[in-house]
Amino acid sequence: MADVQISAPPGVPQIVTTVEFDAPRYLVFRAFMEPDLLSQWLGPRRVTMTIEEYDPRDGGRYRYTHHDPDGNTYSFHGVFHGEPSLEGAVQTFEYEGAPGHVSMDTLTLEEQGGRTTVRTNSVFQAVEDRDAMVQAGMEKGVTEGMQRLEELLEKLKAKSEGGASRTT
Amino acid sequence: MADVQISAPPGVPQIVTTVEFDAPRYLVFRAFMEPDLLSQWLGPRRVTMTIEEYDPRDGGRYRYTHHDPDGNTYSFHGVFHGEPSLEGAVQTFEYEGAPGHVSMDTLTLEEQGGRTTVRTNSVFQAVEDRDAMVQAGMEKGVTEGMQRLEELLEKLKAKSEGGASRTT
Repeated sequence: MADVQISAPPGVPQIVTTVEFDAPRYLVFRAFMEPDLLSQWLGPRRVTMTIEEYDPRDGGRYRYTHHDPDGNTYSFHGVFHGEPSLEGAVQTFEYEGAPGHVSMDTLTLEEQGGRTTVRTNSVFQAVEDRDAMVQAGMEKGVTEGMQRLEELLEKLKAKSEGGASRTT
Repeated sequence: MADVQISAPPGVPQIVTTVEFDAPRYLVFRAFMEPDLLSQWLGPRRVTMTIEEYDPRDGGRYRYTHHDPDGNTYSFHGVFHGEPSLEGAVQTFEYEGAPGHVSMDTLTLEEQGGRTTVRTNSVFQAVEDRDAMVQAGMEKGVTEGMQRLEELLEKLKAKSEGGASRTT
């Protein structure tokens, strides 16, 4: 199972998550940028995700909603800063249950020997906002999300290898 | 002259600027949102400013360039998160001389008794990025910018009062 490292140093309004996948970067990039793939892994296992808007380009907006089994919904929205590339993306993030509290997330993707290291760096407007995010159970959600991403990447790899073998 | 307070606490990737103006909030808001006004005050006195794009709405982009008397140019761009309102705005910010280093700025405007307190909160991806901004002379630029804004607000107030007296 993927080893998800989450760092939230005291007194600093920041959360850094690092995880390595046994998958090439272009597949990881697709899993972050294609709504049909993103909705299969982002968030804890108990939620399903609907994406109302997802436009990964400079100034493009996104909005999605998590639905839990109790009927609760949690919506999030933001915009992309700059054009996403295989190297990563920058986007803002706001939970609509706490309007006006915005973070900025930087995604960095690095490939080496067919493996990809995913790093997300979230900075918040205040340490209190970061702490509220941690207390809301962010760690569990991120860890489960990354495990679901790993499972999705395995499926995509199998499909991609299947596709490659069919063409030889 | 406006008392500009700039706080850049050690070890935290953040800069907070606070300043109070003897002007109503709607005038301050206009000075931030209208390109023709913004270009008259943003930045140190020695630069002139051209605005290539300025679209203050959710997902809208902006780009502007500072020109100094030696012929150097400094360009900046970003996007707006959410719809700007009299309460303030959230936007990303990137100096094109250091691509990939992005900050997120939250502007807050509060009016009391006809006076407006302007607060800007910038968070950076890393403390090093914040320190680089401070070392690039950001404090002088911000202080002079706020003084120029104060001068502009005085002009706008005079114009607005002149306009009001003409209608009575």
